[in-house]
Amino acid sequence: MTIDARGDTLTSQVMATIRQRIANRSLLAGAKLPSIRALARNLSVSNSTVVEAYERLVAEGLILSRPGSGFYVASQTAPLSLSEIGPKRDRAIDPLWVSRQSLDAADSDLKPGCGWMPPDWLPEESLRRALRTLSRADGASLTDYGTPLGLAPLRQLIGRRLADKGVEVSPQQILLTESGTQSIDLLCRFLVEPGDVVLVDDPCYFNFQALLRAHRVTIVSVPYTPTGPDIDLFAKVCAERRHRLYITNSAIHNPTGATLSPVVAHRLLKLADQFALTIIEDDIFADFETTAAPRLAAFDGLERVIQIGSFSKTLSASARCGFIAARPDWIDGLVDLKIATTFGGGRLNAELTLSVLRDGSYRKHLDGLRQRLSRAMVKVGGRLRNIGIVPWLEPQAGMFLWCKLPDGIDSSDVAKAALAHHVVLAPGNAFSVAQSAGSYMRFNVSQSLDDRVFQVLTAAIREAAER
Amino acid sequence: MTIDARGDTLTSQVMATIRQRIANRSLLAGAKLPSIRALARNLSVSNSTVVEAYERLVAEGLILSRPGSGFYVASQTAPLSLSEIGPKRDRAIDPLWVSRQSLDAADSDLKPGCGWMPPDWLPEESLRRALRTLSRADGASLTDYGTPLGLAPLRQLIGRRLADKGVEVSPQQILLTESGTQSIDLLCRFLVEPGDVVLVDDPCYFNFQALLRAHRVTIVSVPYTPTGPDIDLFAKVCAERRHRLYITNSAIHNPTGATLSPVVAHRLLKLADQFALTIIEDDIFADFETTAAPRLAAFDGLERVIQIGSFSKTLSASARCGFIAARPDWIDGLVDLKIATTFGGGRLNAELTLSVLRDGSYRKHLDGLRQRLSRAMVKVGGRLRNIGIVPWLEPQAGMFLWCKLPDGIDSSDVAKAALAHHVVLAPGNAFSVAQSAGSYMRFNVSQSLDDRVFQVLTAAIREAAER
Repeated sequence: MTIDARGDTLTSQVMATIRQRIANRSLLAGAKLPSIRALARNLSVSNSTVVEAYERLVAEGLILSRPGSGFYVASQTAPLSLSEIGPKRDRAIDPLWVSRQSLDAADSDLKPGCGWMPPDWLPEESLRRALRTLSRADGASLTDYGTPLGLAPLRQLIGRRLADKGVEVSPQQILLTESGTQSIDLLCRFLVEPGDVVLVDDPCYFNFQALLRAHRVTIVSVPYTPTGPDIDLFAKVCAERRHRLYITNSAIHNPTGATLSPVVAHRLLKLADQFALTIIEDDIFADFETTAAPRLAAFDGLERVIQIGSFSKTLSASARCGFIAARPDWIDGLVDLKIATTFGGGRLNAELTLSVLRDGSYRKHLDGLRQRLSRAMVKVGGRLRNIGIVPWLEPQAGMFLWCKLPDGIDSSDVAKAALAHHVVLAPGNAFSVAQSAGSYMRFNVSQSLDDRVFQVLTAAIREAAER
Repeated sequence: MTIDARGDTLTSQVMATIRQRIANRSLLAGAKLPSIRALARNLSVSNSTVVEAYERLVAEGLILSRPGSGFYVASQTAPLSLSEIGPKRDRAIDPLWVSRQSLDAADSDLKPGCGWMPPDWLPEESLRRALRTLSRADGASLTDYGTPLGLAPLRQLIGRRLADKGVEVSPQQILLTESGTQSIDLLCRFLVEPGDVVLVDDPCYFNFQALLRAHRVTIVSVPYTPTGPDIDLFAKVCAERRHRLYITNSAIHNPTGATLSPVVAHRLLKLADQFALTIIEDDIFADFETTAAPRLAAFDGLERVIQIGSFSKTLSASARCGFIAARPDWIDGLVDLKIATTFGGGRLNAELTLSVLRDGSYRKHLDGLRQRLSRAMVKVGGRLRNIGIVPWLEPQAGMFLWCKLPDGIDSSDVAKAALAHHVVLAPGNAFSVAQSAGSYMRFNVSQSLDDRVFQVLTAAIREAAER
């Protein structure tokens, strides 16, 4: 069908009329549009002009055609609601619930469910020194944008730290970001398209789910065992469907505290090769380790594996700084995306992070921190067992205990009851794509040393048992 | 067609076989797959099982069906390349070119094309004081995540600043972000879907284009006049097609330095109502203003208009902090997205920004800055005219001069020639979706005071004229 210049203008006018009626709500979502004949008569145009206008509006998605019935107004595009993507859930076990409750908590609230440590567990004095040092830095450090890759000496230092863990990487393969979360977000922008399928662990860090929803991908999970993902199931899932990406923590797994074994790591990488799967290894808990666990990035040499990390957990979550270590041919595309979406961000935080990492006391801080966490782990583990809450495993390190509640108790009920007493807990299903962790709960031992945590927990469990 | 459990398993096995052959490259992109009959015989399954498997792989996008010819391996999903989205362009006028050259420039390079001021034009001393003050702050300020909305006293202060410009907004409607760029990025995540159509000005800030490409939307531009967008064309474009969003600067337009007139602002808002268009008003140059220009957000009362801003241009681009002011019912969805994609980011930078803004000297800094810019504008404008480069208009304020080069000179050629002499320029077409600004160039007057800028420019123009 060819349309001359005048026909094209008339079509545009008809389209504009319909658009306007929809915009000013004289035609509501779901309403039937006038018949072709009626509208043609009404606007003094030919039937074929209306047909063409309707077809183009259908192509734009503004109206729908129901063959044999007519044309209808499509539902308006509403803003994206993360809580409406994916299966409907109780708000208390929505992946964003724990984040929001933890971030919004008052100073006096207790937060055994949150994912970070109290201020006095972090290197406050080093940070104060770093701020004073920075107050004497050159003007550009204080006022200018960061470079596309980010502060060179910090990238060199991160490169040496990765080499210590067996990951050989040049500073040109390291891209600084504003946080670990932003690292994964940038990689998702780079690697996935809406509708792609992404693999995660069950359970996994709840914000992986929230972040992946924002990328409009399908999330598939594989159960996590004490030595890594259930590798037979992992193989089966890969064979069934094409997955673009797998996101995991290998050294200290969140929330379980499990450690990937070399055998599972090796099989995982073979499957990644076989099914052209890219893996994001989130190594954000690296500095908590007491003995080095295998890293996928070290085995793989950054071919299929991308490692990300940050300093939010051991240095500061106020002055955040993260990084991506990836194969050299991906860096340029990642830099373009970083500039497009953040421009040259994060310079001051990178300067601060470098200053603290160079400060001789940071290593001492980490030594002390590991011991303190290890003592808290024993103490909190014991107190939890006393009230019938049993750790799934004894983690080698880190701050998390993934625990089974007494039989028949729903962790979501317990979390809701505890919140009324200003205690923020982390119910299991917030971590579970398959919603299979209703009787589990994650405890952050550094935030669970107050007696009130156990008083409120005991009462909340009693309350949940009576429901 | 119904498939029993065993049939389904066989189908999955056939699919896994094909997936594996593609993954291990025994079937390359574009290769023809075995015929249905041949594969069925080979794998000892029925023809209908292979048909089902191929159909599902087509649905997944892994293979393609060419009717009458057979099935072919689809091209592998490659990582997103921003430079490959949208029309192909010379790298020198790619929207990301100016950003990368400016951010990557050596300290000794001259950057008349960049979008920010030299360090000594920014409030260095206030920043040093703020860093020292922060070194004595409470532990949580130094180590903890930010709250979901961001630092309350800073949101209150931003609310008062907006009220001064006629935008009435409660602190609960203000969301802190890590930068102005991140504000727009978050809003795009919230408001647009891949394939939506977004309106920008021609010319417009080049990073709007790069950012919108990352969101996989179609970008449409309307010419900008000295008083705002060409409003008749704007109306025509809206009538022709459904646009989801319009992104613009209203007070001091980047790159032109133009100021929106009240008449155009009013017509623009009427069109936005008529065509259900949301507007992002990027007010990042607000603090440069000498006399207050009309704000869309003020006229509209934040119904259809969202205002964003930041302090990267007047306070620091190293300690960045931005904000979004939007209608109350959108804040919750934006907070969810902010947590999902950044977690509680930017606390330290928000503390620093607050400290500088509260410092009595900031207002004095701005007064001095405006005078200094105004003097530079006169001086640089005069020197440019001397070599035949003529400003499109005399901006009321700000740092940019949008200039026409001598007839027949291509600004992209000039930019390339100047780069060889370590001078980063901003060629017009980097700002133009329609590629209509080849003879224009943006100058940042604060970065154009060195004699060498004009020597290199003169030589580069001569060189371009001889091509």
